[in-house]
Amino acid sequence: MGRAGCTDASAGEEIYRLAAEIYPICRSITGDGVRQTLQHLRGHIDLDIREIPSGTTVFDWTVPREWNIHDAFIKNVEGKRILDFRCSNLHVLSYSVPVHTNLPLTQLREHIFTLPDQPDVIPYRTAYYAERWGFCMTHNQLLALPDGIYEVFIDSSLEDGHLTYGEYAHQGESADEFLMSAHVCHPSLANDNCSGLALLTYLARRLHGRKTRFSYRFLFIPGTIGAITWLALNENNLGRIKHGLVISCVGDGGGPTYKKSRRGDALIDLAMSHVLKHAGPQATVNDFAPYGYDERQFCSPGINLPVGLFQRSNFGSFPEYHTSADNLDFINPAKLAESYEMILIVMDIVERNCFPVNATPKCEPQLGRRGLYSSVGGDKDTPSQNMALLWVLNLADGRHSLLDIAIRASMPFSLIADATHRLREKGLLLD
Amino acid sequence: MGRAGCTDASAGEEIYRLAAEIYPICRSITGDGVRQTLQHLRGHIDLDIREIPSGTTVFDWTVPREWNIHDAFIKNVEGKRILDFRCSNLHVLSYSVPVHTNLPLTQLREHIFTLPDQPDVIPYRTAYYAERWGFCMTHNQLLALPDGIYEVFIDSSLEDGHLTYGEYAHQGESADEFLMSAHVCHPSLANDNCSGLALLTYLARRLHGRKTRFSYRFLFIPGTIGAITWLALNENNLGRIKHGLVISCVGDGGGPTYKKSRRGDALIDLAMSHVLKHAGPQATVNDFAPYGYDERQFCSPGINLPVGLFQRSNFGSFPEYHTSADNLDFINPAKLAESYEMILIVMDIVERNCFPVNATPKCEPQLGRRGLYSSVGGDKDTPSQNMALLWVLNLADGRHSLLDIAIRASMPFSLIADATHRLREKGLLLD
Amino acid sequence: MGRAGCTDASAGEEIYRLAAEIYPICRSITGDGVRQTLQHLRGHIDLDIREIPSGTTVFDWTVPREWNIHDAFIKNVEGKRILDFRCSNLHVLSYSVPVHTNLPLTQLREHIFTLPDQPDVIPYRTAYYAERWGFCMTHNQLLALPDGIYEVFIDSSLEDGHLTYGEYAHQGESADEFLMSAHVCHPSLANDNCSGLALLTYLARRLHGRKTRFSYRFLFIPGTIGAITWLALNENNLGRIKHGLVISCVGDGGGPTYKKSRRGDALIDLAMSHVLKHAGPQATVNDFAPYGYDERQFCSPGINLPVGLFQRSNFGSFPEYHTSADNLDFINPAKLAESYEMILIVMDIVERNCFPVNATPKCEPQLGRRGLYSSVGGDKDTPSQNMALLWVLNLADGRHSLLDIAIRASMPFSLIADATHRLREKGLLLD
Repeated sequence: MGRAGCTDASAGEEIYRLAAEIYPICRSITGDGVRQTLQHLRGHIDLDIREIPSGTTVFDWTVPREWNIHDAFIKNVEGKRILDFRCSNLHVLSYSVPVHTNLPLTQLREHIFTLPDQPDVIPYRTAYYAERWGFCMTHNQLLALPDGIYEVFIDSSLEDGHLTYGEYAHQGESADEFLMSAHVCHPSLANDNCSGLALLTYLARRLHGRKTRFSYRFLFIPGTIGAITWLALNENNLGRIKHGLVISCVGDGGGPTYKKSRRGDALIDLAMSHVLKHAGPQATVNDFAPYGYDERQFCSPGINLPVGLFQRSNFGSFPEYHTSADNLDFINPAKLAESYEMILIVMDIVERNCFPVNATPKCEPQLGRRGLYSSVGGDKDTPSQNMALLWVLNLADGRHSLLDIAIRASMPFSLIADATHRLREKGLLLD
Repeated sequence: MGRAGCTDASAGEEIYRLAAEIYPICRSITGDGVRQTLQHLRGHIDLDIREIPSGTTVFDWTVPREWNIHDAFIKNVEGKRILDFRCSNLHVLSYSVPVHTNLPLTQLREHIFTLPDQPDVIPYRTAYYAERWGFCMTHNQLLALPDGIYEVFIDSSLEDGHLTYGEYAHQGESADEFLMSAHVCHPSLANDNCSGLALLTYLARRLHGRKTRFSYRFLFIPGTIGAITWLALNENNLGRIKHGLVISCVGDGGGPTYKKSRRGDALIDLAMSHVLKHAGPQATVNDFAPYGYDERQFCSPGINLPVGLFQRSNFGSFPEYHTSADNLDFINPAKLAESYEMILIVMDIVERNCFPVNATPKCEPQLGRRGLYSSVGGDKDTPSQNMALLWVLNLADGRHSLLDIAIRASMPFSLIADATHRLREKGLLLD
Repeated sequence: MGRAGCTDASAGEEIYRLAAEIYPICRSITGDGVRQTLQHLRGHIDLDIREIPSGTTVFDWTVPREWNIHDAFIKNVEGKRILDFRCSNLHVLSYSVPVHTNLPLTQLREHIFTLPDQPDVIPYRTAYYAERWGFCMTHNQLLALPDGIYEVFIDSSLEDGHLTYGEYAHQGESADEFLMSAHVCHPSLANDNCSGLALLTYLARRLHGRKTRFSYRFLFIPGTIGAITWLALNENNLGRIKHGLVISCVGDGGGPTYKKSRRGDALIDLAMSHVLKHAGPQATVNDFAPYGYDERQFCSPGINLPVGLFQRSNFGSFPEYHTSADNLDFINPAKLAESYEMILIVMDIVERNCFPVNATPKCEPQLGRRGLYSSVGGDKDTPSQNMALLWVLNLADGRHSLLDIAIRASMPFSLIADATHRLREKGLLLD
């Protein structure tokens, strides 16, 4: 895919709009919220939606029962909803079992989660694998609750059903794949991960119909159990995955951040490190660690795929993380566009990377007579285009890839790849 | 040896007491001072005391004649002892030949060693392999000496006898050994090396009767010639030494300091570097250099054992080094206890280190249903116990040792080893 | 070559004098200026002067026509020379074709090169491979030129002839060679590269008649085309070049600077890095890059010789570079002497480097009885001579070269080499 054909000023706006559209939906690791989200994305790309029955064994795990929720509230003694699921789907502990009872504040407290250090935001909490129920609210609201009896109601269901995920494949010249994955299990959290879902959907749409060297696979899967399920069902085809990125939190003002794959020296690791190095001083590259998003599964020791994690702010490092403050004001089109552009650059690296071989390796070829070099010499400064030509010629010994050369020259990959193209046109590189 | 069973608040006090008991003895590389010291230690551990005859060839060296000293003084013209060996055994140049004569101050000066930069302390000097005699005193005392004739007297003997050293072996399950060595040749110097002798004696005593994986060998040997002698006599058994530490100067307030073995990447080097990294910012790890204590011999190119040097302050780096200021006030129980604890930690690493293998390496196992993970998710902070479990599972591919994992995770070894134990109990690691 | 016999206080003066003598000559990549320069150097060393015909194919290049210039000027309407080649040979664009015409200032401007940022100096410009003519002048002079018609005259010739270069070989015990190369193509520029030509000539003269282990080859060649020509003509003998340096800009007050060969870990790279490390904090070692002097050709991928670049200030980094300010005031004898001394040190490393083997590798040998060690022990400080002995003994396992040992010990090579000599005399190293 040519880069120039892909980026445009509207990319950030379109990704933002899509993120905003799916933001209100109450998602969890299973249930109708996931289905609604995937159906919405299907309006943009031809998404395959898969349904895996509860009880299916996937490696060490079992696909859980499906959870759905219709309403939930806490009413005070006057019958007024002092907490209402319809106002924020974060109010209910995800996977809460149904409950309808009256109980005093002292007992209710045991089911309420708040953030005393951030008293104005609602935390996001889950209890997927325990039969519990609970509510989340701001700490200030909890402090203001008078003693008394409260009516609690959660109209949820936890029954055999399915785990739902979406998959989109773009066929390239080669069966070798670049995998990109975003989690679809979080409720109304804008950065984590409406931003990622929207960015990947936009990217997949722009990729449609374009000729690429690699095939691209996009996964829209529930975190952890979704990744484990997909890996278990596709275990025999994992060898074709040559590069991969988990995408989350790509719309906020921090970062960018890249966490390397478990391998640490995979091409995706070198390429993303290169992209981030040229993205500015605030960019951070971290070594792999076994906590985070679905790279935990992709990089488990028996899977060990070359899959890293791309984000703006590192998860858990910003106060809005997993709270109601991760809303549509927390992300913005400019940063979404920047994130999108960085992914295009890394795709460009993967697509164009090769191991050039100098056709005239003994001394430099005469660039001047081929129109590749200025005719007046003696200048102190050499344009970076000339330097790129010299770097490619010098390292084109079949053992250095274009990315290796770009790293060694401290130049953007595209400058090196463009110089390679010009040298190849003049017959200075072996085909 | 379980760590918990070993450390207690009294360790530092007991080590200090033992150091204080042997402090007054006048030791040298041979002679009765060494014998008295070893006899004293024998009151604590079942020490083997070996006597090697003068004249024995040990590699490039010959065991020297035995030196003993009974009295020494300088008297002024009034017959008053203005320097008295009975006040400080540092007053006499170690291995001084006998002398009894009268001579003027100008000639006497040639036999007197002082420290002009530290005019209030007596230096420690030796002349093992030259027929010399001499005295050491404070520089201020030298400056105050009036001209005149002085009577000098050294009642020493330098005769065929023996070189004496002590050895204690603790038998473990394996014949593979952890060697610990302290030099026993210095006179009244508290840090260098009464502290080391006392710490190793205490450690050997606490080890008695405990079941260990490795065997432990403790050497109490004269510096240089003692180490050379021991290595020459035990040359055929050196292959069983898998780890080793030379211990000296372990009671002062500086450091801790570790000097790596000549190999530089032996397990003892990685383990001690790890221990010191977690000991605080003032800890220092140095590369091997061929000057220092008996690691010089253990790490000579034809021996090349994995033996490093553990100290608090690096020898030669503190003003009290090799002076009368290295006395019992210069060491303290708290620092001795700290040093002892660090050696217990490195023993724990050596004892418990292994290469775990994940029994469910494809994706993470479900820790929650095994009671290894909190049931409520979404929290920003992951307890370090959980992180330790994830690190072990992720790197348990048979190629990473527990120490490798601890280093990679920047976590104390014990946390990783304890997590490994819990995972093994749940069947999540292959036996 | 023993170092002591080579350096003396007058080296810098003699090199400076020689640089000053060749400074006025108008050199280019071909022509009589090169011949005059080489003839002058032949007054000092028995230089082979080679003439390669125009049209000779050398790898991807062709030896160009020969350029000579006799006179050039710009006259104003009054007939006064307002620019005169006889005042500065930088005034004419090198390889200008002949011209004699009258033209208005507006058209003349298109043929004039100045430096607006450095308005008081004349730039140095070339157009070797394009049929152009032009003048260089100070920017202030250009600004002061009144409108009007100017007479321009360049009395040059560009005809089939020869490319000329000089070569001097010193035969050592081995056919293995140390190559040193300086470019001879720049006109009146003192640092770049009269300094290099003079230094190499002086060095070659001092080397004459001395017994060396390596053979030394000195090249005085036009930049780029000269190096390419020499490499093409000597392609079958390049295997004997074991070390090499391109020498330029060795007389200014900056640096020293070393740019590594393309290999990056050749002995010349380690040795020069070592020399510069001990030369002081202002010394800089850079990785190879494919822009610079003739190391570009020596380090092209199909040649790939272990040849680095030695300079004081890095080319292009000082404002005087390629201007009339690079004159005889810009270089000085003291810096030329320093540069010369550093080259002697690196020659000493190459000459004396070896892989010693300890004859008594089990424990330290007893240095004291061999008179290699002070008889009184206990001192805090160990003289560096003693440390050098200990380092050599410890690393003399046949796998560490003297340079490796010097690097490891952070000691000057000569101290390590001298210690090796003393140990060998005492039989402590195998021959």
